[in-house]
Amino acid sequence: MKDLKQRILSAVADDLKDVEAALGANLNPHFELVRRVAGHILFAGGKRLRPLLMMLSARLCGYQGDHMAKYAVIFEYLHAATLLHDDVVDGGDLRRGATAAHRQWDPPTAVLTGDFLLARALSLAADTGLPAVIDTIAAITEQMSQGEIEQLARKGDLTLTEARYLDVIRCKTAVLFQGACRVGGLISAAADQQVQTLDQYGHHLGLAFQMADDLLDYTLDTDALGKKVGADLREGKLTLPVIHTLGQAEAPDRQWMTELIQAGDFTPDQFQRLIDLLHRLGGLDYTRRCAASQVEKAKNALALFPAGNERSVLEAIADYALVRKA
Amino acid sequence: MKDLKQRILSAVADDLKDVEAALGANLNPHFELVRRVAGHILFAGGKRLRPLLMMLSARLCGYQGDHMAKYAVIFEYLHAATLLHDDVVDGGDLRRGATAAHRQWDPPTAVLTGDFLLARALSLAADTGLPAVIDTIAAITEQMSQGEIEQLARKGDLTLTEARYLDVIRCKTAVLFQGACRVGGLISAAADQQVQTLDQYGHHLGLAFQMADDLLDYTLDTDALGKKVGADLREGKLTLPVIHTLGQAEAPDRQWMTELIQAGDFTPDQFQRLIDLLHRLGGLDYTRRCAASQVEKAKNALALFPAGNERSVLEAIADYALVRKA
Repeated sequence: MKDLKQRILSAVADDLKDVEAALGANLNPHFELVRRVAGHILFAGGKRLRPLLMMLSARLCGYQGDHMAKYAVIFEYLHAATLLHDDVVDGGDLRRGATAAHRQWDPPTAVLTGDFLLARALSLAADTGLPAVIDTIAAITEQMSQGEIEQLARKGDLTLTEARYLDVIRCKTAVLFQGACRVGGLISAAADQQVQTLDQYGHHLGLAFQMADDLLDYTLDTDALGKKVGADLREGKLTLPVIHTLGQAEAPDRQWMTELIQAGDFTPDQFQRLIDLLHRLGGLDYTRRCAASQVEKAKNALALFPAGNERSVLEAIADYALVRKA
Repeated sequence: MKDLKQRILSAVADDLKDVEAALGANLNPHFELVRRVAGHILFAGGKRLRPLLMMLSARLCGYQGDHMAKYAVIFEYLHAATLLHDDVVDGGDLRRGATAAHRQWDPPTAVLTGDFLLARALSLAADTGLPAVIDTIAAITEQMSQGEIEQLARKGDLTLTEARYLDVIRCKTAVLFQGACRVGGLISAAADQQVQTLDQYGHHLGLAFQMADDLLDYTLDTDALGKKVGADLREGKLTLPVIHTLGQAEAPDRQWMTELIQAGDFTPDQFQRLIDLLHRLGGLDYTRRCAASQVEKAKNALALFPAGNERSVLEAIADYALVRKA
């Protein structure tokens, strides 16, 4: 695991430096406070996975232009915008191990800074001069906001099916991964088939990534997660480990889980009993298998491209989605 | 006044019908709840002033295409998005005479529906295929969110100058009017000088409109305003009537006003005493004169265009900005 992470990080070290510089250089705020609040979330760490996916995809398609990092930050701005809004929505206190912006300042400032970052992302997309890129970025934002609304509306909904869960995580997470990979192809004027292939890779990677994320909420402790463990359940957010377990449980266990979810709070002992159920009834294993299957699909999609450094890093990122601990 | 409003309304009756139809037709939600929440704010009334400005501007430039109403709704979606976010920011209970969306549902749903409407506006802008239109829409969103952040940061700031107030209302209000008029020219492939003229008209109209709005908060009762009177002051939001009066006041009155603003609440008697001060020290008159001067500048800009129906309606709208009661 450590090796995989190190291999990815050393392969993308130069790109990462470019992204960090471009994140500040393209922010372009009119008011100083905007730079401070946006900087708080942008520079509190983060894997920069989405911009890196765009850069690797572009390089895989032979990108020759000079604006790689500038266009790549579109995807970190979009990501940061949704984190700002999600933390307001969920009332989360911690983000990337630091105080969430809506606590450091206030919820309105976090909402408005998110709006600003959304708008900056769209301005940068407009700078490409490519209608397909602009369409992709606008569509990402439409779908992500809708995925979040639907997830919110379904809070505590014990009838949530796996199919609906998949539709929600596609909207709220996978479309951004997908869009980053797709735009990497588009700015390189890649052939349609290559663009579609990158799109597919990003789609499956995004689903795997979110499923793995939903697993971490039941398998990590607070320090490693950088936010409170069990947060999803506390908010009534049903994810695949719980959905699958509810479907497998006999009446008494299902009844107990139902009451726990409806109560919206739990003791450490109750949480441990839930984890035991998720193990015993296969919810954790099933989710892991689903994520692994998405990782395979993501890697298979890449077979269209010749073997080489970029393809191998993208494959490593897919593997990492599953084994990462944060 | 009644005549002016009637004259405008009968001149734009057909356009208004097209806008109403296009507002629903272009919403295109993936989830049903999104349609309901977005519809709540979109169809609770509203003057549709911004889409009408785009349509009148386009017609003034001889627009020949088939997508007038589709592109016009961009500006109502942007406006509704900012209303949704502003109501969350300000904690407003009423909007367009109905329960605000963040009360009818919850703040997160209002935030996310605002995001969706922003994204829809940008998708429609992308549909024009015109980079200048897309740039304009992205820049509007950047500036509006920043204007709101700055306004928020300056709450209760008794040192707020008229110049800073003007910069804030330019960002939060005028850029949208300006953008609507500008885009009307751009989609008609109008000459640069015409586009710039429309831009100027929209800029001055927007400033006049916001100044008039800031006056209404001190001159109307709650029924006519559709929201609580004195709301700006209760939120610590200093607008031109108060800024000017503070500058004119002798020490005892200034001290009294300072304490009132810092307290953030007031009795009806205290509010009446404040209104008397705003009258006596000229804050209301001064604001009215500033707004009137912006109306004149807006109308003068239009002189570039030949006299005719569209120009005369745009002039009437500028006059109406000042005399409207809601």
